[in-house]
Amino acid sequence: MRLHVPTPLRWSDLDAYGHVNNARMLSLLEEARIQAFWVNGDTAEHAAGASTAVIDATPGATTITLIARQEVEYLAPIPYQRQPLDIELWIGHIGGASLEVCYEVYSPRLVEPRVLYTRASTTIVLIDTATERPRRIDDREREAWEPYLGEPVDFRRR
Amino acid sequence: MRLHVPTPLRWSDLDAYGHVNNARMLSLLEEARIQAFWVNGDTAEHAAGASTAVIDATPGATTITLIARQEVEYLAPIPYQRQPLDIELWIGHIGGASLEVCYEVYSPRLVEPRVLYTRASTTIVLIDTATERPRRIDDREREAWEPYLGEPVDFRRR
Amino acid sequence: MRLHVPTPLRWSDLDAYGHVNNARMLSLLEEARIQAFWVNGDTAEHAAGASTAVIDATPGATTITLIARQEVEYLAPIPYQRQPLDIELWIGHIGGASLEVCYEVYSPRLVEPRVLYTRASTTIVLIDTATERPRRIDDREREAWEPYLGEPVDFRRR
Amino acid sequence: MRLHVPTPLRWSDLDAYGHVNNARMLSLLEEARIQAFWVNGDTAEHAAGASTAVIDATPGATTITLIARQEVEYLAPIPYQRQPLDIELWIGHIGGASLEVCYEVYSPRLVEPRVLYTRASTTIVLIDTATERPRRIDDREREAWEPYLGEPVDFRRR
Repeated sequence: MRLHVPTPLRWSDLDAYGHVNNARMLSLLEEARIQAFWVNGDTAEHAAGASTAVIDATPGATTITLIARQEVEYLAPIPYQRQPLDIELWIGHIGGASLEVCYEVYSPRLVEPRVLYTRASTTIVLIDTATERPRRIDDREREAWEPYLGEPVDFRRR
Repeated sequence: MRLHVPTPLRWSDLDAYGHVNNARMLSLLEEARIQAFWVNGDTAEHAAGASTAVIDATPGATTITLIARQEVEYLAPIPYQRQPLDIELWIGHIGGASLEVCYEVYSPRLVEPRVLYTRASTTIVLIDTATERPRRIDDREREAWEPYLGEPVDFRRR
Repeated sequence: MRLHVPTPLRWSDLDAYGHVNNARMLSLLEEARIQAFWVNGDTAEHAAGASTAVIDATPGATTITLIARQEVEYLAPIPYQRQPLDIELWIGHIGGASLEVCYEVYSPRLVEPRVLYTRASTTIVLIDTATERPRRIDDREREAWEPYLGEPVDFRRR
Repeated sequence: MRLHVPTPLRWSDLDAYGHVNNARMLSLLEEARIQAFWVNGDTAEHAAGASTAVIDATPGATTITLIARQEVEYLAPIPYQRQPLDIELWIGHIGGASLEVCYEVYSPRLVEPRVLYTRASTTIVLIDTATERPRRIDDREREAWEPYLGEPVDFRRR
């Protein structure tokens, strides 16, 4: 099962080549990931409506998430467009204290033909803010995420 | 009359103080302004649903918009929140080749109490891409914008 | 007296128009300001060599700086260039708990002709991190900054 | 042989966790890459003093560089610091129309102990702006780059 996270562009995501900048793509993935995984006190529901949203990231929370690794394949340049990109998001692996989040970034929904712009994966480590060390993924998190387990991204250019 | 442009934050808009960065606020105003004023070929309607959207900014268009001046008052720090900020936008002045866009940036709609975070204004000059010189605001633009003319921002800290 | 703070551009400061983005300019001013005013534990000297650097902004410090107001006039588009911009920086006003920093942003030193790209000012408030309230500028700060007091920016487009 | 490209941080590279943001790291790599590979008309020499700088990226040039792939391992969080990061840069592979740039991002020179913050690689494709298709790496480029050929990055977390 995959989540679909609508992720709006900003005109400032473009660089001087007139396309979404390669570094900025990681900010878009970050935002999609936050929509999918973070509980946020200011609202009971969120864009993705995701039952995966079980990490409490409100200020003062006991967990922060560190990025250990990212891999990205850029398949087609992305122009500015008003409709949000359609980021499909799933989990490629759940480890002891880390998980691998996988993404396919598509053109906006309902726009034809559908274009796959980018494939990517991110390895996230859960850090206990008290000890500043990795902490184990707990049963509640594991249960919330398992329905979204799938094959890791099949990168073509390695 | 004012436009209300819902403008989503990103977590990456925060700086190390944990609030929306002062420079990033100008990117948020830029995005609200683009929603309000730019015709964009990819969709017949847009978030703001605005009849003010008459500047053709598609690649190859004959006009680009340059920023001549900005003034911003930051009234309260802005935390990360999922609901889009509610940016009110109107026009403080229409000149020969320039217009002054005015903004009040509020907390998300339906969230109580309503907080005014920021007041700002931007002077935009319309540039003809062929001559690279300012070009006159035409009748169609003037007509589209006049309903949104109002008092310029009453800055308190000058 | 004015400080000269050499401030390097990045290619990613450009937007789709191929010029330094108007919002990004505020990040450049922020960086020049930090070079000029912040003591930073990692080094005894810094780019600006500035005796104005008396605000301790290391993590856990007792003061943070909030931006209350900014005003910017953009006089000429800024292309990407390798040599750092030459930002002149002085103080237009020292109040009880705030100061007004003034800037003129010039083309790199030694490049002829010299171009004035941008004029700007920023009102900074010193916040005590314990009380989260403004705190008075102390004698040491006042003494460090007074040699750099000058006329506020003479904005032309107000 | 490796290039050493001194790459200054900005305070705005930090995110709300107080470390250099993971996406922003790609902008730092981009800047180091540009210093190393781009000829830029505004100056005969540049920070890296690199004989690898043979791609003409001035506006109107006949080549642009597209990013096809990136892989990054984040080994330690990076705090704000005034001295530039020391980015070591070499070439892991030269293909027909693409090259793989490799990086190790270290703490500033002369600061002890030396810390390896990040390992990364970027696959760049040279695009002919006239045809908008990949174009072959020419002899001059190959000759300039071959001295910097080395083993690709040995990623640990794949």
